[in-house]
Amino acid sequence: MEQQTEISTLGEFGLIDRLTQGLTSVNSSTVKGVGDDAAVLRYPDTEVLVSTDLLVEGVHFDLTYVPLKHLGYKAAVVNFSDIYAMNGTPRQITVSLGISARFTVEHIEALYSGLRLACEIYGVDLVGGDTTASRSGLVISVTCVGDAPKDKVVLRSGAKDTDLICVSGDLGSAYMGLQLLEREKNVGAGQKDFIPKFEGKEYLIERQLKPEARRDIIKELDKAGIVPTAMMDVSDGLSSELLHICKASDCGCRIYEDRIPIDYQTAVMAEEVNMNLVTAALNGGEDYELVFTAPLHAHEALNKLEGVKIIGHITKPELGCALVTRDGVEMQLRAQGFNHMPATEEMVKDAEDEPQQPSEADSDEK
Amino acid sequence: MEQQTEISTLGEFGLIDRLTQGLTSVNSSTVKGVGDDAAVLRYPDTEVLVSTDLLVEGVHFDLTYVPLKHLGYKAAVVNFSDIYAMNGTPRQITVSLGISARFTVEHIEALYSGLRLACEIYGVDLVGGDTTASRSGLVISVTCVGDAPKDKVVLRSGAKDTDLICVSGDLGSAYMGLQLLEREKNVGAGQKDFIPKFEGKEYLIERQLKPEARRDIIKELDKAGIVPTAMMDVSDGLSSELLHICKASDCGCRIYEDRIPIDYQTAVMAEEVNMNLVTAALNGGEDYELVFTAPLHAHEALNKLEGVKIIGHITKPELGCALVTRDGVEMQLRAQGFNHMPATEEMVKDAEDEPQQPSEADSDEK
Repeated sequence: MEQQTEISTLGEFGLIDRLTQGLTSVNSSTVKGVGDDAAVLRYPDTEVLVSTDLLVEGVHFDLTYVPLKHLGYKAAVVNFSDIYAMNGTPRQITVSLGISARFTVEHIEALYSGLRLACEIYGVDLVGGDTTASRSGLVISVTCVGDAPKDKVVLRSGAKDTDLICVSGDLGSAYMGLQLLEREKNVGAGQKDFIPKFEGKEYLIERQLKPEARRDIIKELDKAGIVPTAMMDVSDGLSSELLHICKASDCGCRIYEDRIPIDYQTAVMAEEVNMNLVTAALNGGEDYELVFTAPLHAHEALNKLEGVKIIGHITKPELGCALVTRDGVEMQLRAQGFNHMPATEEMVKDAEDEPQQPSEADSDEK
Repeated sequence: MEQQTEISTLGEFGLIDRLTQGLTSVNSSTVKGVGDDAAVLRYPDTEVLVSTDLLVEGVHFDLTYVPLKHLGYKAAVVNFSDIYAMNGTPRQITVSLGISARFTVEHIEALYSGLRLACEIYGVDLVGGDTTASRSGLVISVTCVGDAPKDKVVLRSGAKDTDLICVSGDLGSAYMGLQLLEREKNVGAGQKDFIPKFEGKEYLIERQLKPEARRDIIKELDKAGIVPTAMMDVSDGLSSELLHICKASDCGCRIYEDRIPIDYQTAVMAEEVNMNLVTAALNGGEDYELVFTAPLHAHEALNKLEGVKIIGHITKPELGCALVTRDGVEMQLRAQGFNHMPATEEMVKDAEDEPQQPSEADSDEK
């Protein structure tokens, strides 16, 4: 057992000092980082991009199988992914932590080591945050600031009829990784020296625990001179993201079942847990791949891109959004995905004994 | 009883649509707000300021006496305060919410109405966020982006020997408001139609429930041609903030007990709860006043500023940081304040039944 230090021995400011020790900046846009009421940044010639994500213990992660360092890494990377999905480059993050009493200084240091590793690998500066107590469990809020050259920002709203729909990497593997981790957790429950069986499925575990943001795809696209007309990262599932793009762009889409990129391990795992493979790939979530649209004339250039697959095309809005199955049947796309909201009951059980009625706000205030 | 709608009937995206309906932008720096992977901002000629705050139910607020609309208002304003404390202007916020199952759509709308009201009053655009489930209680993370003219940013680190120390408004009243609310909550516990006694102490309640950020002081300083050498907002208590300024600026300070601005209601309440008034004023926290330093030659101009009081001066570092009492005794300043960390046990009780040991992170990863 390694040394465990109570957070109270350092206090909030002592903890922050320890966590942010030796932080240096790599981006010229970072003027002043940690250590004031706000960070100071400078973006004279570019658009500034801001994205934010909140991760809550018991909803987004389960510390029985997620190491804190991986969690920190993932918390940063999913925000970088949002910035890349705008065709931008992440530059700074702020990190707010809500920490409950069972966490020690060493735990939070492990979490921070993951955050810092992600920052190091992706060239991002950690410039501020807030560290506070939480009544139950760990809460992580990361905000990422990035930039993109003027007029290079890619929104969801630019897809046009006949545009090609592309996706990077493969889909459904992170979700199958989650299924695997959950299965082994249940199998091993109560057993002291239980060793989970991950052989042959290491890729699924990695996709779930240590996702990467597709910086490489953004670079490739830039090198090939392709500016997507619309783009999103696949965090809630391909179906959900495509529906967002089609709604924002006022268009429809057709994607083809036999074009959906799926890894072999994903297929094996779906078989084992008796789950429809395509449903898992379309709705699994947490892939952090990029889905984007590009003009038809980019067809040849897109085909040459490593790790990018054309899966369908944009249509007129009246045609709706559909998946074309292997036997040619059109099935309407629905977002049944990965919705981290109270709707999905098995994910969210209110831990409070006595549900407390929040007071009504005075509607006549101010 | 007003209508209460289960969040599950709308889903995450339906809820976000409803909350962000009719949002318009007032700042030219807001290029694209809510509705994409990231917000798009433009800051060609100014420094960009970023601050963030995390508010956790049961630690920072108690919904038995805090109306949700007030909570939303405060969550926004405390972030604006951080930007003003850099001598900047808040321009955009992102809002992440973790919502537990007992909250309805109407509850979250009330919270948002407070956020939107604060944005309206302070001229800030709500440009994005994240809405997710929480296992227990409400979590609010607000990030604020603002700007300041180049070379007008005021850090903590610029205070110099002989500079005057100034503070706006009065101190300790928000803390006394909290004491009052807690007292009445305890008195009324279990009583059905209990009416709390707030007469003659309305100011304390307002300071706790609906604080304002001192935009007016920043404008006054600008008009008077005074650029503070160091500045912070008083969120953790004056002692704590002054120690931060002195540490960052490598200096000491003397402040004078008889110069500390304290409201009459604060004094009455301190008497009633048998608390040392000066201790409350120096360590109470949540005042959201500004403490700043300015060169000695600004003495006359500072004296003319409405709502600003000179309370002491900066010294050489070897003299340390001290409060000079009414009878001339020097007492070392200590930050014993309002520290939202697991250290303060009565504030933070871990709500989990079975404290779960977080796994160790692999130190050899990546």
